[in-house]
Parts: sequence; C-alpha cells; structure tokens
Amino acid sequence: MDILGDIRRIVSDENVLTGDARGDRSAVWGTGQPCRAKALVRPRSTDEVSRIMRLAFAAGQTIVPYGGVTNLVHGCTTTPADIALSFEKMNRIEDIDGVQQTMIAESGVTLLEAQQSAERANLFFPVDIGARATCMVGGNVSSNAGGTRVIRHGMMRDSVLGLEAVLADGTVISSMNRFLKNNSGFDLKQLFIGTEGVLGLVTRIVFRLDVQSKTHHVALVACRDYDNVQSVLMAAREQMGAMLCGFEVMWDNFYDEVVVPRGRLAAPISADYPFYVLIEAMGSSVGTDSDAFEAALTCMFDAALLEDGVIAKSDAEREAIWAIRHEVEWVVRDALVFDVSLPVRQVNDYINIIRGKISAAVSDAHVAVFGHLGDNNIHVSVLTDDRSDATASCVKNHVYESLRPFGGAISAEHGVGLEKRPYLGVSRSAAEIELMRTLKRALDPRNILNPGKVIALA
Amino acid sequence: MDILGDIRRIVSDENVLTGDARGDRSAVWGTGQPCRAKALVRPRSTDEVSRIMRLAFAAGQTIVPYGGVTNLVHGCTTTPADIALSFEKMNRIEDIDGVQQTMIAESGVTLLEAQQSAERANLFFPVDIGARATCMVGGNVSSNAGGTRVIRHGMMRDSVLGLEAVLADGTVISSMNRFLKNNSGFDLKQLFIGTEGVLGLVTRIVFRLDVQSKTHHVALVACRDYDNVQSVLMAAREQMGAMLCGFEVMWDNFYDEVVVPRGRLAAPISADYPFYVLIEAMGSSVGTDSDAFEAALTCMFDAALLEDGVIAKSDAEREAIWAIRHEVEWVVRDALVFDVSLPVRQVNDYINIIRGKISAAVSDAHVAVFGHLGDNNIHVSVLTDDRSDATASCVKNHVYESLRPFGGAISAEHGVGLEKRPYLGVSRSAAEIELMRTLKRALDPRNILNPGKVIALA
Repeated sequence: MDILGDIRRIVSDENVLTGDARGDRSAVWGTGQPCRAKALVRPRSTDEVSRIMRLAFAAGQTIVPYGGVTNLVHGCTTTPADIALSFEKMNRIEDIDGVQQTMIAESGVTLLEAQQSAERANLFFPVDIGARATCMVGGNVSSNAGGTRVIRHGMMRDSVLGLEAVLADGTVISSMNRFLKNNSGFDLKQLFIGTEGVLGLVTRIVFRLDVQSKTHHVALVACRDYDNVQSVLMAAREQMGAMLCGFEVMWDNFYDEVVVPRGRLAAPISADYPFYVLIEAMGSSVGTDSDAFEAALTCMFDAALLEDGVIAKSDAEREAIWAIRHEVEWVVRDALVFDVSLPVRQVNDYINIIRGKISAAVSDAHVAVFGHLGDNNIHVSVLTDDRSDATASCVKNHVYESLRPFGGAISAEHGVGLEKRPYLGVSRSAAEIELMRTLKRALDPRNILNPGKVIALA
Repeated sequence: MDILGDIRRIVSDENVLTGDARGDRSAVWGTGQPCRAKALVRPRSTDEVSRIMRLAFAAGQTIVPYGGVTNLVHGCTTTPADIALSFEKMNRIEDIDGVQQTMIAESGVTLLEAQQSAERANLFFPVDIGARATCMVGGNVSSNAGGTRVIRHGMMRDSVLGLEAVLADGTVISSMNRFLKNNSGFDLKQLFIGTEGVLGLVTRIVFRLDVQSKTHHVALVACRDYDNVQSVLMAAREQMGAMLCGFEVMWDNFYDEVVVPRGRLAAPISADYPFYVLIEAMGSSVGTDSDAFEAALTCMFDAALLEDGVIAKSDAEREAIWAIRHEVEWVVRDALVFDVSLPVRQVNDYINIIRGKISAAVSDAHVAVFGHLGDNNIHVSVLTDDRSDATASCVKNHVYESLRPFGGAISAEHGVGLEKRPYLGVSRSAAEIELMRTLKRALDPRNILNPGKVIALA
C-alpha cells in the first residue's frame, strides 16, 4: 500500500519531501542528527492533517509531528518507518482581537512572529523562550513551554484559551474557545497541551494576549546566603505584587563562568558573592512604577538582605544585566544540561548534594547553576572534558535520583520526550504513569502518534 | 451483597447515614429537594475513599460526590440507588508554605476556611464565590469555580498546582505537584478539574496562593452606550494593568431592580443611564496606587467615555458599591437564572435579541442582566409571574439557542450537571462530546461516578 502516494494527492507533490529534500531538517536540536523519517509531509490545513491521519490510522502508519524541532528531549526523533508531519506550511495568524485580547494562529507560526504580531496590535504575547525565532507555537503548546516570565504570566498552558487538534483516527476536535470562563463540559484542550503530540496533533490555537507593559525595571543584586535569596523572593513578591515578572537566581559558579576573567562579560557587581539575583518588574503606571521598584529594593537593602546591587537606568543597562543571564548559551555550549523543579526552600540543599556527588564521581566536573527560582525551576549545567557515555549516565543518575527525597520534578519546562522517559518514575507514581497509558490507549489505540515519546506502551 | 455493611467497617457506623439522618442535606441548592441516596457516607481520608471505591467498583454501585452541594446545575442529584459520598469529614488544612506560596487542603475544607487560613498566613486565596461559607474546595475544583476575580486571578483551575484523586476502581492518583513549572509527563490533574466528579473523586489539593494586596480601589461609573463600555474595559486594562481585578457590568434593567424606588438600595449615581460598571483594582504600592487608579478614571472621563461616576473613599463606600452588585441575590430570588459566555463585542447584541424573544413569548417578563464582562461571563435573570414549565422551557430555549450564532458558551462558570446537559450541543461539537464519552469510558468503564452528569453514555 502506497500511503505516500495517497498523501501526495492530499497535500500535492511539493509537500511530500523524501531523501535529501528533508535532510536539512534536524531531528534533535543542536546535534545535527538528521531526520530519518521516510518522508516529511507538509499539510496546509486542519482538513489536510485530518485526511492524512485517516490514512495513517487505517495503515497503522506512525506519525511524528514537526514544529520548529527545538525541544531538548529528543521529542521529535524519527525512524525510517515514520512519517514526519511538519506544520511549516500552516503559518497564518488568522485573527487578533483587541477587545477580546485574543490571537488565533495556526500551529506553524513561529513564536517570534506571534510576539511581533501581538506587538503590532499593541498587545503582548506572554510566553517567551530562547528558541523564539525557530520554534513554532504549536510545538510550544504541545510541550507547554515555559521561559522567564512564568512567575507572572504562567506557562504556555495559561495562555491557551482554545485549540483545534486532530486525533489519531483523523477526528477533528475543534475547541476554539475564546472565553476566560467556559465550563461547558470537559476542558478538552488540556489533553493536547504538554502531551508532546502523543494524544493528538494541535493545528490551530486561540491565545490569550495581555496588554503591553509601559514600564520595565531590572536590577541585579547579590546575596550572602540562600536564606537571604529566599527572603528577597518573598520581599519582591510582597512589595512588587503583580509587577514582578522575573526572578532569576545565578549561583556563583554560573556567574563566575560568565564574567571576566573566566567569562566574556564585564561584571556589573563583584564576582565575590555566592548568589546573584536578576529581578525584573513590568507595570502600567508610568509616573510611579520606577519609585515603587526602587522603594522595594531599598527595603531589601535596609533589611540587610542584599550585599550589593545595581538598578538598570537605561535600555542598554537593562540589556547588559540580562546578557549575563543569557550567557547560559555560552556556559552550556558543551555541557550536560538539566531542567528540574524543586521546592524553593530545598533548592540549595539539592544543589549542594549533587555538586558533592558529581565532583566525587567526575574529577574535573564544574557544576554551573541558575534558575527561575520564583517558579521552582533550576537549570543545572555540568561541564567536563570527560565525554564518555558512562560519565554522562553517572551524572544523569545523580541529578535525577537526588530529586527523590525532595519530591522534585525531572522536567520543569523541557518535557520528557525520549530522553527523560527512563527517569519518569522519579517524579511520577506507577499509578500516574499507568493513567497516562490509559489515556494514550483510549485516544491512540494503534500507537501511531509520536510513539514512544513520554511513555512506552507495554 | 451488603455494600453498606462493608462500608461501615471502613468508615465506622457513625459515618454511614441513612433515612432521616441524611435528610437535612439538600441535593439541589436552594430548592429543598432532599438527598434521595440510600445512604450518605463520610470517609475520613483518601485511603477510605479508595477502599469505598474498590467496593463500589466491584458491586457496580453508583457514587455521587457531595461537597457543599451549592452548585446550580443539579450536579449532585441522587436516586435511591446511589450512595452519596460526602467530604465533610475531610476538612483539614494540612500545610501552608509562605515561601512556596502553597496551601495543601483536603476536599471538605470550606472555601471560606481556606480564604481565612490563607489570610492568617498573610497570603491570599485567589478564588471567591458567593457560596464561600458552605461550598467546599473539592467541589470548587471539581466544578472549576469562577467568581468576580477571574479577570486577574483566573478560574479555580489556575489556582490548582496539584491534587489527589480516586478513580472509579479505587486507584489513588496522587499528583500533589507544588511547582509552577512541571512538565514531567501528562498534567493529569486537568482530568479532575471542572469534570464535576464524573472521572474521579478529588480528595486533596495543592493550591497556589498569592500575596495579599495592600491597596483596594472601587469605582462605579455610568456609560451612555455599549461601545463606551467596551472602551472603558480596554482603557482599564491598558492603564491599570495587573491591578485590574474586577470589571462588573450592570445593565439598566439590573440597576433599576436594585436601587430605589424598585429596589432596596440608595443609588450612588442616577438610575438614568443604560450601563453601569463597577471597576475594582488591587495593588501593592501603598504610596502610589490611589493616584494611578484616579488617573485612569480621569483619562476615561476626559475621553468622554463616562457619563457619571463615583470613587469609593472608604471601606464603607466600597462596600456600598459592591452591595449593589451583590443585590443579585435579591434580584434573582424568584427568577430563572442563566450563566453564559460570549465574545465581549457581541454581548449586547445577544442581550437585545433574547430580550426581544423573551418579551414576545412571555408578556410580563423582566430580563435583568449583569456580568463579569472582562472574562466574557454574563448572568441573565428572567423574572416572570408565569411559573409554568412550558414558560421556563421556552425561556431556556431562547437563552441557549440564541448563543449559537455568536459561538457562545451555555455555561461560563456554573458547569453542566444534569440541568444543562440537554443544551451541551449548543456549545460543543458532536466530536467533542464523543471525546468526553471516550474519556468517561476509559476512566469509569462501569459508569459509577456521578453517572449522567455532564454527559450521558449511549
């Protein structure tokens, strides 16, 4: 049975790529690992996706959804038996409604395009992540993308009002809700947010937009110990309220890597402290937000929570402070990187434990840590010249297994894919994983949608 | 087989109520319709709920969950074949964590108790609804409760980080996540939020708390037309940003009913205008929020959006303004009440259509309307002396069927229960309803959990 021939008749010849034509599309971000699928198909509408899935369901053909393929968990890995279904031709922003504060977009729109379109309509697209220029909003929804603004705006889930998805058998579930309040039956969109394409293919989305902020404040402060970092977090929430939109903690081992002499950037404050915090606030009151931001920081100084600090006084200074945090791209260039969540109180205890274990196991290991502490999310980078699989496996085990006593999460924002699947049991019970399987079997009985990602079927 | 005997051994005799003992518990809020279940059982822990469900699953025994039973959609209706499972003995607040900003509570905690406990810890429980003293947080989660603060804090779904639920077969799904970011596998809690107890019984919840606001501002303004109401909403969002936490629109027919001479309250501003808006803002900047709030209103006056307005200058004045909106309890005392969502732009067109249709069909009908317009939710009250079933049915049909051209929702916040089930197809497609059934069959194959609510199985 020639399923590709049938698919060609649906999407046209030019949208079925085989051999070299699909070769420039990577399957694992940053690795150059090629797409191994027997073909990459590019439907142009929900209806075409539905017709492809009807054929795939009948044939038992496995389908791997392709957005921007920027995930870090091998969520789009293909085999030669798979067909990759790319959303790159479904890239229209259908509507932006300023009164309703909604955007309707197809899944193949890049995050950057969504952000810029919102801005042109004097509105604000809440989610932002580093891969913005490449990643697609459908993938952001399917992986429930996070980023640096979660403390204020939530994960991608919180910005999705409605969506349209195609089930394994081709059924179109159109739940294009536009309302903040809608309790008319089960909230079916939740099935497709953060489930990495294993329960259905998201084709269109209704996003909730916000107003643009009028003021933007950034400070970099240093703390002498982790207790003070926690107190600064509480003070920032208490005094800045909903203005607070970023709370990025950098451990000394991260800051050291980034500023001269080890790193590339000038240090706005001395590199002698154990903790650095980037505090970001945005507001709507042009006349008064600046005073409120400075007053909050003054309170923290007066309470002896801060050792040092600097408030950005211009766009350039704001960018210079953020550049330190964004140097993560440089820090992790060759590192083993991890994305975990822990209770705020216990983050530093956990860091100390894994530093000890990893140092004992890998003599040259340098463990650099930063995190969106306000939302529990810590990124751990382990740098070592030892590139053996055994070492990588040993480090992974220490990072994940050490989460158990704290009830930590193996994935804060990156998802599970294939890469974290072996460790899912660290964070989820057998009953939970079995319920995930129950859902998978109910919605995808032939196991053709992104098979093997997140969970394995028995 | 004596399932009640087995259940007595699990929960003790005193927690299995039959006959008159369970008679003071109503099955439908405000109607006095009695609980008809053959028994009301009161487990004291998740484990007891699990053991009861194992028995029920084996016996095919139907179970109707009882929280505060304040829902308005016949979501707890029982038959003599059912057992009502009440959470009233599971009323402990297990933990409040000020750093993590979380509360862990059992399902039987009343909303008021949760709010007050948060307040004692200098934190804020985001959800508030009129039934706060009676309703229980487990029911609020199961029905995804809304209220007046949704524009700022979201629905109950947005305040739930994790939960524990018992499946139909007694399996305990403990997903007590405490993190803002956690993408470690499917977000299973979503299955149990807003599904009205038909997929599982919520026993414990991790709530996300917020900081307490330090400032509180309320204004009542009048507009000459609906275009201006929309412009006021946009201006309030634009200028107040995240401070905006309430935007309650009252149509003249509601305001008329409430203020003298027709109503009981003094009118803070003349009753001659077609639209009234209560605008509420809360913030964290004691020194400056008041100026920001007044500046925003001044802009609206200067832009000629407002005909009249008053800003509350004291707690008493704030309460007096809110009292007008809260007089809904009096307005709807004998009314047919409806809870729908529509796109902001089209709300008034819809209101005019149903006013016309209802007036034509029921000569003495008075249609009073108010709504949380910022979150699309409109409450329609139809007052008439004609109490016939035929009239009620006719009014219902006009209210729900008129939603179709606007893509409106038959339930914004109240849920579906038995009462709105016949109209679910107005707002949801056949494919969506079938997917709801697929989930129900997968999780509750014997159809024993709150059977018949939300959806009927074929």
